[in-house]
Amino acid sequence: MKNFDLPNTGFFAKGDPLPEPLRKNFSGACYLNPIIPANSPLGCSVSNVTFEPACRNNWHKHPGGQILLVTGGRGWYQEEGKEARELHAGDAVEIHRNVKHWHGAAKDSWFSHISIEADPKAGPAEWLEPVSDQEYNQLD
Amino acid sequence: MKNFDLPNTGFFAKGDPLPEPLRKNFSGACYLNPIIPANSPLGCSVSNVTFEPACRNNWHKHPGGQILLVTGGRGWYQEEGKEARELHAGDAVEIHRNVKHWHGAAKDSWFSHISIEADPKAGPAEWLEPVSDQEYNQLD
Repeated sequence: MKNFDLPNTGFFAKGDPLPEPLRKNFSGACYLNPIIPANSPLGCSVSNVTFEPACRNNWHKHPGGQILLVTGGRGWYQEEGKEARELHAGDAVEIHRNVKHWHGAAKDSWFSHISIEADPKAGPAEWLEPVSDQEYNQLD
Repeated sequence: MKNFDLPNTGFFAKGDPLPEPLRKNFSGACYLNPIIPANSPLGCSVSNVTFEPACRNNWHKHPGGQILLVTGGRGWYQEEGKEARELHAGDAVEIHRNVKHWHGAAKDSWFSHISIEADPKAGPAEWLEPVSDQEYNQLD
């Protein structure tokens, strides 16, 4: 874990380090602020997620889909077979059910997004292999 | 419509004035930036909503529930039979299905929130009577 000072986004608090069972699916330090829990009767959960610079998650799929609302910093989103998309505050990403993807910070910037799980009752995320250094290091 | 200069929240753009069929349910100017449409296959829609000072919506209910994520300014949320809750950036509100409520700006501040409709397929909002000036003017 690098010793970056992650700023507050001035929007939602960054929360606590990821819980242990999730941490192995991330390449570095990542913080989670749960806002609306997965067991809400609304059937929709919301969290704020903050990545330290160069931290990204493994390739994964959400059976119920996911929406990202970028709240600060600079980062990347990539779907399997497509080019990575650079993300900044105010950008939104609509991730359809079971689409293989990853997201995370740029090399030189922290990155923060709201994560909306559109239908968490469809099942938990399916975690896959890491994004290789070769793939990630191509991104500026 | 008052002539306030609504600042950009620095997060999501404020978008355009509400479309005509919705406008009659609001006491003043309100802006809508649709981010994820209601017909998304995710079954979850997201908008940014910005109220001019003193603008609030009528009492209403969402058959599918709603989540508010406050992105700027100062405003109010009230459920029928309960005290109004003052809202600032970073606050979240979980509104259960068919709960009668209203939300809007404080008298002296614009107000901006992300609106997540958790289950728009459950049906459109049911719009009811305005919040009376007597009720609203009690709020500081």
